[in-house]
Amino acid sequence: MRNLQGRLDLCSVNTATLGHREPLSVTIDRIAAAGFGGIAPWRHEVENANVAELARQLRAVGLSVTGYCRSTYLPATSREQFAANIDANKAALRDAATLGARCFVMVVGGLPEGSRDLDGARAQVIDGIGELLQTARDCGVPLALEPLHPMYAADRAVINTLAQALDICAELDPEHAGNLGVALDVYHCWWDPALRASIARAGQDERLLAFHVCDWLRETRDLLLDRGMMGDGVVDLSGIRRSVEHAGYDGLVEVEIFSKENWWRRDPDDVLRICAERLQNVC
Amino acid sequence: MRNLQGRLDLCSVNTATLGHREPLSVTIDRIAAAGFGGIAPWRHEVENANVAELARQLRAVGLSVTGYCRSTYLPATSREQFAANIDANKAALRDAATLGARCFVMVVGGLPEGSRDLDGARAQVIDGIGELLQTARDCGVPLALEPLHPMYAADRAVINTLAQALDICAELDPEHAGNLGVALDVYHCWWDPALRASIARAGQDERLLAFHVCDWLRETRDLLLDRGMMGDGVVDLSGIRRSVEHAGYDGLVEVEIFSKENWWRRDPDDVLRICAERLQNVC
Repeated sequence: MRNLQGRLDLCSVNTATLGHREPLSVTIDRIAAAGFGGIAPWRHEVENANVAELARQLRAVGLSVTGYCRSTYLPATSREQFAANIDANKAALRDAATLGARCFVMVVGGLPEGSRDLDGARAQVIDGIGELLQTARDCGVPLALEPLHPMYAADRAVINTLAQALDICAELDPEHAGNLGVALDVYHCWWDPALRASIARAGQDERLLAFHVCDWLRETRDLLLDRGMMGDGVVDLSGIRRSVEHAGYDGLVEVEIFSKENWWRRDPDDVLRICAERLQNVC
Repeated sequence: MRNLQGRLDLCSVNTATLGHREPLSVTIDRIAAAGFGGIAPWRHEVENANVAELARQLRAVGLSVTGYCRSTYLPATSREQFAANIDANKAALRDAATLGARCFVMVVGGLPEGSRDLDGARAQVIDGIGELLQTARDCGVPLALEPLHPMYAADRAVINTLAQALDICAELDPEHAGNLGVALDVYHCWWDPALRASIARAGQDERLLAFHVCDWLRETRDLLLDRGMMGDGVVDLSGIRRSVEHAGYDGLVEVEIFSKENWWRRDPDDVLRICAERLQNVC
């Protein structure tokens, strides 16, 4: 396993960690100044600004883009809406290419409003990913399927385990053409009894495109916005990173913390300083 | 699949559904008067009363006990505490026998306070279940391992999928001696991409000891106490029941709803009436 001490160049910050309180251009400078090697921005930050200009700024400060967040949800209640979702994702893929993103993070969407058809939503997701593959290849930005914690199956993502994500990759990309893989976030997957086996398989299949860290707080108070800083929760972060790197992952370690009542209220530079400290000493 | 219309004798109510606002003796009478065939009481209700007397009352009103809730958590930070947890469960198993319970519901416990050792906690759980098997056999009350939703892995149960529970059953009871199985709750398992396969395996292995229903609300506001009434959420309840009964389950369908801000505030008889209506028309 790589030693992260003094290697913030191997670490990345997802801009959600800072609560999206400032324009992306300011956030880029903060993250670069703090010594990190990468950043993962969100579409609403990028789409409200000048993409080409942001891309120039990112190159100038030397930040890798470890992922572009995130896909428009795929499942829909009509063909028209589904097609619109595909188009929105194609446009985002082109922006991801402009930014030089290493992957486009696919949070695939939950059940369409009013639906109980989980199998149907999963089938739509597979169709949708299939439709996006050629654009991903054309753009040179691979799709990173992110399994979300099962508590988001209804409203955010019907891909809920790493094994399931890998099954979809195998089905749609049996040739391992390099444009489809997974984003592994410890928050979503730490509990999975099959996690280690699935990580090994992901490595073997060359699907590991991104690795996200934060922590699961024992007393989680909110399903979405109460993630913990690395070291404040129960996840064996170094154990999981060891598995991921043993499986061949050599990309950056990306911090992604949604924390409305805690970290999003703190000074951004303090948050970055503590992220840096924990990445080096806990992960 | 069985038709539940007019068959409340095939339906059971877990007393948590009524919010534990009254003595168990009162709750027993309410549930019997509403026409249900079964009940699943909790230990704190039973241990604060006279077990033998409650058992007589249950027989007198003709209620089956579809499960006795629930085990003392197994994982511990010391041998002494672990041994004490085992002893507490043995005592509860004897009460379960007195009550004539069809199973003892095992919510196995999460990580011990301060621990990040998920594998270790899971190993302790397997050891603990192994230690309880003989008592279960002696009492004639099978242990029903209940996989809990992954969002409870830290603090309530490190068994989080049906497949994992079945693996433990196979490891500890390869002979299918009849004293070890699973309690399947739709709330915990509905999202699982492997659910149907796992249910089929559970049937084949003759492990299905209990089947619990409620619903997952799309806008869940609390990790523990915001379960929905059947039909108010996103779970394909009849689809899952079909799988469970197709796999051979012929026990009662038990309603278990934790709902601090909604159902626990309503009149208990109204709650029972609505449970009955939904069981017959939605499940």
